[in-house]
Amino acid sequence: MEERTDYCGNITEKYVGKKVSLDGWVQRRRDLGGLVFVDLRDYKGIIQLVFNTDHQDVLDIAETLRSEYVINVIGTVRLRGEGATNDEMTTGKVEVVVEKVEILNKSLTPPFKIKDDIDSSEETKLKYRYLDLRRPEMQKAIRTRAQIKHSVNEYLYENGFIDIETPNLTPSTPEGARDYLVPSRVYPGRFFALPQSPQLFKQLLMVGGFDRYFQLAHCFRDEDLRGDRQPEFTQIDIETSFMNKKEIQTVTEGLIARVMKDEKGIEVKTPFPRIDWDESMARYGSDKPDVRFGMELQDLSEIFKDSEFKVFKGAIDDGGQVKAIVVKGGADKYSRKNIEAYQEYIKRFGAKGLAWTKFNDNELAGGVAKFIKSQEAALVEKLGLENDDLLLFVASNKKIVADSLGYLRKAIAKEQHLYDPNEFAFIWVVNWPLFEYDEGIQRWTAAHHPFTMPNEEDVHYLNDGEDPHKAYAQSYDIVLNGYELGGGSIRIHDYKIQEKMLKALNFTKEKAYEQFGFLLDALQYGCPPHGGLAIGLDRFAMLLSGKDNIRDVIAFPKNSNATEPMTHAPLEVSEQQLDDLGIEVSKKD
Amino acid sequence: MEERTDYCGNITEKYVGKKVSLDGWVQRRRDLGGLVFVDLRDYKGIIQLVFNTDHQDVLDIAETLRSEYVINVIGTVRLRGEGATNDEMTTGKVEVVVEKVEILNKSLTPPFKIKDDIDSSEETKLKYRYLDLRRPEMQKAIRTRAQIKHSVNEYLYENGFIDIETPNLTPSTPEGARDYLVPSRVYPGRFFALPQSPQLFKQLLMVGGFDRYFQLAHCFRDEDLRGDRQPEFTQIDIETSFMNKKEIQTVTEGLIARVMKDEKGIEVKTPFPRIDWDESMARYGSDKPDVRFGMELQDLSEIFKDSEFKVFKGAIDDGGQVKAIVVKGGADKYSRKNIEAYQEYIKRFGAKGLAWTKFNDNELAGGVAKFIKSQEAALVEKLGLENDDLLLFVASNKKIVADSLGYLRKAIAKEQHLYDPNEFAFIWVVNWPLFEYDEGIQRWTAAHHPFTMPNEEDVHYLNDGEDPHKAYAQSYDIVLNGYELGGGSIRIHDYKIQEKMLKALNFTKEKAYEQFGFLLDALQYGCPPHGGLAIGLDRFAMLLSGKDNIRDVIAFPKNSNATEPMTHAPLEVSEQQLDDLGIEVSKKD
Repeated sequence: MEERTDYCGNITEKYVGKKVSLDGWVQRRRDLGGLVFVDLRDYKGIIQLVFNTDHQDVLDIAETLRSEYVINVIGTVRLRGEGATNDEMTTGKVEVVVEKVEILNKSLTPPFKIKDDIDSSEETKLKYRYLDLRRPEMQKAIRTRAQIKHSVNEYLYENGFIDIETPNLTPSTPEGARDYLVPSRVYPGRFFALPQSPQLFKQLLMVGGFDRYFQLAHCFRDEDLRGDRQPEFTQIDIETSFMNKKEIQTVTEGLIARVMKDEKGIEVKTPFPRIDWDESMARYGSDKPDVRFGMELQDLSEIFKDSEFKVFKGAIDDGGQVKAIVVKGGADKYSRKNIEAYQEYIKRFGAKGLAWTKFNDNELAGGVAKFIKSQEAALVEKLGLENDDLLLFVASNKKIVADSLGYLRKAIAKEQHLYDPNEFAFIWVVNWPLFEYDEGIQRWTAAHHPFTMPNEEDVHYLNDGEDPHKAYAQSYDIVLNGYELGGGSIRIHDYKIQEKMLKALNFTKEKAYEQFGFLLDALQYGCPPHGGLAIGLDRFAMLLSGKDNIRDVIAFPKNSNATEPMTHAPLEVSEQQLDDLGIEVSKKD
Repeated sequence: MEERTDYCGNITEKYVGKKVSLDGWVQRRRDLGGLVFVDLRDYKGIIQLVFNTDHQDVLDIAETLRSEYVINVIGTVRLRGEGATNDEMTTGKVEVVVEKVEILNKSLTPPFKIKDDIDSSEETKLKYRYLDLRRPEMQKAIRTRAQIKHSVNEYLYENGFIDIETPNLTPSTPEGARDYLVPSRVYPGRFFALPQSPQLFKQLLMVGGFDRYFQLAHCFRDEDLRGDRQPEFTQIDIETSFMNKKEIQTVTEGLIARVMKDEKGIEVKTPFPRIDWDESMARYGSDKPDVRFGMELQDLSEIFKDSEFKVFKGAIDDGGQVKAIVVKGGADKYSRKNIEAYQEYIKRFGAKGLAWTKFNDNELAGGVAKFIKSQEAALVEKLGLENDDLLLFVASNKKIVADSLGYLRKAIAKEQHLYDPNEFAFIWVVNWPLFEYDEGIQRWTAAHHPFTMPNEEDVHYLNDGEDPHKAYAQSYDIVLNGYELGGGSIRIHDYKIQEKMLKALNFTKEKAYEQFGFLLDALQYGCPPHGGLAIGLDRFAMLLSGKDNIRDVIAFPKNSNATEPMTHAPLEVSEQQLDDLGIEVSKKD
């Protein structure tokens, strides 16, 4: 095999007059009788090949070439003729006159064209993933992911972090999401679990004296899949000792700035803004605020607390709120029908209704206008209303108001193009509650995880007789354009605080030791103060690639049923394999 | 928490007169009454702290410090007094007079001293792995591993390779070692397998147009463990398209040279020597030759083919060989008892005996001397015998001869210090047989794997009516100091050859498609010529760390029972978890 001179996409004017050897895939062939043009493709781009009667044997082969054949050609680069250039391609000024061709492999007709924006089904694309990956947009997305990993590796190395691998065969922890289990053959009846995160192991590394750890860690969660979830995913996992949360955040900002510069050529401004969790919920109705645009939630409870409008006053009397967003110029754009669609949608958050009115000709009109006439002046002043403003109100408890208006804010901003999709707005959401109430399982859980350090002034809330749920935590999330990119915290390094924390989460002492005994032991042997964070690599790559599904930045993802249409995994296995493991299948699909 | 100025081990004369803040662990405390010395440790080294009556409150705290307490101190660096310096430490010329101390965490008395060369049991060290990791030699080994990873990342990135993650939840393949299985919850009764290697996925990436792939890939094998095996391990995994084996080897040599330079400061000479597999077996009795020393196997079959000594002649008549190694100066050093111990040992390779004799006073004497008198002159000439030589013979079939003498060669070289343990000798073993006969399962298997390309001139052996086992392969192993560091091959990109190969391995067409259908499909859609290799990261790190067990370069390894004494994984799980997965435990330990 002749060694290639360069990639197809790199053949520009600098090669004119030179003999080159090129490898690639046939993108298309045009046969003009005695003259054949072939577009040859590799991941760098496409180069035009010319086959003519000067080399009849080569021309004969060219006439047999079909899409996706793999060939090597040797030929001479020349400038294209007048009028035959293509300014949209970097190789568009030249072509290669082929003197020698070798078919390295043939191809059946692919099930879809190897080009961007195809409309094949997701299932077909996954079944023929090796063909899907040839498409330029997929090449780009996977390479973006690799570039992020490289930048992360370099930046963290330069900053004294060392890459340590934690185990993939770990103990199962009943807390949190469902584990993937791995039966043990040596101890039948016992199981490993694939790690949901390296949390405890990285804390043990701190106990072990590795004061700046990182890992591009594979994590596994056996959950029902949504758009941006996969059974396995990768996180940029960081842990440090002897650093406070500000220092950890500063290192992280440097990391993100490096990635943005290397991959997007963007200089992001650091430090990133910080917002308290409470404030983020109040102003954006979300702990993942998209701060590329305003349209913040306005608390009108004070204005409506004595209102005659029962829907509003009732919510306030019940301890809830009345909040609104103002859609500038929205009065004209949003019909009653549009608004009704939103009313329907926000029911999923528990909202009973979406009140609206419009400000036109310097007065409120339509919707709930007639019920809130007496608050009109106060509203105009507080909200700075202008003509053509649309007002959308939700009155309910704090959570429902936040969720509903938080969603509406994002949806309307997207419709109204209120932000530049190429802008990247990072923000820290800090000072989270230590606990959150999980409606699903009807109990208090750790907002991040049970190893999160409370704020110093809140540690006392964990004492007997106090209400632990009042405590805030030394935790922080990094948010990009409304997505949670990652999060972390200072961890508990004090054995006594850890014990209290587990107690507050309803662990008996026995259960705490059963599950976390090794951590509780380790805390008693000179565990340094430590903290860290994890950034979702898949999501980061997705956002930087402009994709809206993490599948597009994973080479071989699972489909939404957690299966793999190419290899058909998972598969049935032999009885012998099950026997060796001491397990039996008790139900089949 | 005060931000630290630098690591303890970095506090040298350049800091004299400066105020510093230091974090670390108390290595030891000497209490001289009104004066306390504390050695403070971090991974960079140890610094001497001085507490005196100038700061009585600080001195009072110092008197309570115990081993492995974590403290922060603020103090001023000064030169140590005359005669109090320690030239063995980089910090040995200075000390820190402490003005402020904070106990960040206390410590129970550790189960072993945090220092090198402790004699605690492996089990204790694994149970308290977080303490074991604090020991300087463990810090160094884990950091060596991280440095290798970093050098690999950089070198491959600079050479146009991109880092792509392949899945960990994959189909189970009955070929090769035993898989770790992962039950599927969505499809009860079906299983994923953890990958033994990313082999097929990386080949699919080549089909997908990623022509230079790498990954630091986690691999899993559920095998009984030996010294340098672990259930999970990491390989530096590489695959390329459009490159021949020479080019792949050249890239690999560059990679290894980079690692050796970065981690050991050694400039290794490239290209590495190459040896054919047949020659390696003949000269070294091994496909993993340690080429730091000679003492090669000498084939004496020609000399003994008409010998009256039945043991030798009989082996040759049965199609076997007589081979020997000559231990220079060994006649005096090796007693009959030493030799008998070796005789005993090599029985495990199937050898019936180890014949020996000595060359002294210009003649053979002792052992088998009397039976081989008539070959003495020929032996002296062929082997260039000198006085005090010890000759060790094995007569048997090729494999037993090779295994026995290959082992003896290594063992004796180690005893006799025939090589510099700090030398690193790399060699390529090339041109392997395509198949090997597996005595265990009594059938022919692929010497590397079923996707290895035969040598071009040997492809015809796969045709009907020919003997496929005569074929040699385009495969290559990289060997370091007698260890297989890694291996690879050019892969089959031709669908027809792959079909024939699977047939030669006794796959029916149906079974071939059942297991490898996705690969066979992919080969038909423009699969480029490709090849690659994988290097065992654990073993590489072990050899560069001068360790003899890969456990020492893995942060949290399993013990020899594939369990983890710290977390006690694997563990029993709840009935609910098993129910969700549709499995039952059928036998318990």
